[in-house]
Amino acid sequence: MTRPFNFSAGPAVLPEEVLSQAAAEMLDWQGSGMGVMEMSHRGKEFISIYEQTQSDLRELLAVPPEFSILFMQGGAIAENAILPLNLSRGQQTDYVVTGNWSERSQKEARKYCSVSIAASNVESNYTSLPKPASWQLSESAQYVHACSNETVHGVEMHTLPDLKSLGSKVPLVLDISSHMASRSIDWTRVDMAYGGAQKNVGPAGLTIVFIRNELLGHALPHCPSAFDYKIVADSESMYNTPPTWAIYVAGLTFKWLKKQGGIAAIEQRNISKAALLYDFIDASSLYQSRVEKDCRSRMNIPFFMRDEKLDAAFLSGAKAAGLLQLKGYKTMGGMRASLYNAMPVAGVQALIDYMRDFEKNQA
Amino acid sequence: MTRPFNFSAGPAVLPEEVLSQAAAEMLDWQGSGMGVMEMSHRGKEFISIYEQTQSDLRELLAVPPEFSILFMQGGAIAENAILPLNLSRGQQTDYVVTGNWSERSQKEARKYCSVSIAASNVESNYTSLPKPASWQLSESAQYVHACSNETVHGVEMHTLPDLKSLGSKVPLVLDISSHMASRSIDWTRVDMAYGGAQKNVGPAGLTIVFIRNELLGHALPHCPSAFDYKIVADSESMYNTPPTWAIYVAGLTFKWLKKQGGIAAIEQRNISKAALLYDFIDASSLYQSRVEKDCRSRMNIPFFMRDEKLDAAFLSGAKAAGLLQLKGYKTMGGMRASLYNAMPVAGVQALIDYMRDFEKNQA
Repeated sequence: MTRPFNFSAGPAVLPEEVLSQAAAEMLDWQGSGMGVMEMSHRGKEFISIYEQTQSDLRELLAVPPEFSILFMQGGAIAENAILPLNLSRGQQTDYVVTGNWSERSQKEARKYCSVSIAASNVESNYTSLPKPASWQLSESAQYVHACSNETVHGVEMHTLPDLKSLGSKVPLVLDISSHMASRSIDWTRVDMAYGGAQKNVGPAGLTIVFIRNELLGHALPHCPSAFDYKIVADSESMYNTPPTWAIYVAGLTFKWLKKQGGIAAIEQRNISKAALLYDFIDASSLYQSRVEKDCRSRMNIPFFMRDEKLDAAFLSGAKAAGLLQLKGYKTMGGMRASLYNAMPVAGVQALIDYMRDFEKNQA
Repeated sequence: MTRPFNFSAGPAVLPEEVLSQAAAEMLDWQGSGMGVMEMSHRGKEFISIYEQTQSDLRELLAVPPEFSILFMQGGAIAENAILPLNLSRGQQTDYVVTGNWSERSQKEARKYCSVSIAASNVESNYTSLPKPASWQLSESAQYVHACSNETVHGVEMHTLPDLKSLGSKVPLVLDISSHMASRSIDWTRVDMAYGGAQKNVGPAGLTIVFIRNELLGHALPHCPSAFDYKIVADSESMYNTPPTWAIYVAGLTFKWLKKQGGIAAIEQRNISKAALLYDFIDASSLYQSRVEKDCRSRMNIPFFMRDEKLDAAFLSGAKAAGLLQLKGYKTMGGMRASLYNAMPVAGVQALIDYMRDFEKNQA
């Protein structure tokens, strides 16, 4: 069976190998007589899954030993509160606003601390990124928050900000939800990063937090214990029952990533995939990308037609051609193609072929 | 293949039919070309799963229309904070302490409100339950919290407290994690109930909250938006990306429950299963239950041998006989058999047969 190509922004396509293995092991994980969903999280079977998943992720992303990797719940939207509950100390924080998601992050943070907007590109309709040298950082900020890939607006920081070289000692916290595990991370520039799993990693319901250990232990008194990073770290993400199935699927995805050649290889493939689609869009007279070339997301590619009345026909034809979930975000309109790790080059080619045919039929 | 019998207290055994269907649909849910983990939570495919799961659960448990059913994350341990964040108004609350879980609940609540212990049976080592008529309820309490089935100590409220008949108007909030969907609930006596799914319902990572609508809308200012019951209710549990896979598996379990004859039928089967094991234990001279007969849990049955040095041999022999995860909770020692909905009568019989043989070999 050939499956359609699924361009959902998330929850999103997973590698077929991952799905097939999860299905094959559903009633009996490796001779244990139990499916993964049925295992005590404290039993040796699940502990072995947990430890392998942790260590594969640490290896893939070259996470240094001075960082903890936490498996939590609630997604990035819950983290918008959990982050300031843990790191703000109720004081000053800086937020960089580059699209829908970082806008939501700064809004939620205001419940817990004073928020200063260090930079915003709302005036460009979030089609460009403010250069880190222009960020107005407060010396006293507990952290500066940025979203390194905006899923809705399709802008991505291709190079992570090097705040230290700009003379700032403020910890950098990144929402990496929609490009986690799609590229390498320079951990010398980052102090914490978090994201929902439901893009490149696994099912919805798992949040992964990477945090420099020296930042642990400063939660506000009203931070729920289950969301206190120090408690979660000290208990190996088992203070509450972790989302065991989601961790297992993430682990299968990490194994698949290693077989693909690891992060360096997948990053090159992601660069190529995105270039194929952007080059086609730029050469076309029907489609357009509105994002500046130096910050176009490799993961989430919103595109528009000269006449939005064509959208419905484009989308229904795409579905008939086996190209699913291409509708743009509700506030954006148009289309959006998400090209996560598990989207093969053949999927991008099939989309381009369909777009070319559709354009010809409009001529 | 015959699977071993899995007595885990949670995450726990699921019906084989549920697992088989989940495996069969893994790469292609009902001809959609997508697995459930790969679907946008806002697409019509997942919305149909969500709506069916909601309506089957409402039908099974006869949840009245004046209650909302919320699908959340973080499990009962997170709810220990989320509940007072939503319902305490920072004021007085009452807690009934009947075991490990309600003890943890009251402790976490103290972060957010004033907690009064309305009743406690710690002096009996949690082997009995304080009668509701003896609960010291504060007239001004925002709610009274109780755990209607204590997973660790194995005590269960076979009849839910009827506080109204005792002259109290304080809303009753129940942690029903480990017996949710195992029996009927008299909603006239309950104002809110919550539980993790990983016992009778589905995988870990899904919390189900039943709440009387009039209690919505009183969250404290520092309640994270993703955990504000009113926001969750108003957004149909999609303020953040819900744990889609866990909701899907819960939905398959609810369909299975309906095929078993619904809650009334499964409750009768659960009563019979528990009676089989307790009767055997009471007639034995090797094993003992320490819980008083009128409040013995049908779901979680801790039992002990006269000589705890026999535990290791019992457990290793059980595993060899295909009887898994019988070890008692870390603070309790001994053994614990959890007889959730998906544990067939044959599993209980097999356990009793093994226990009888083990006892004979000690003679």
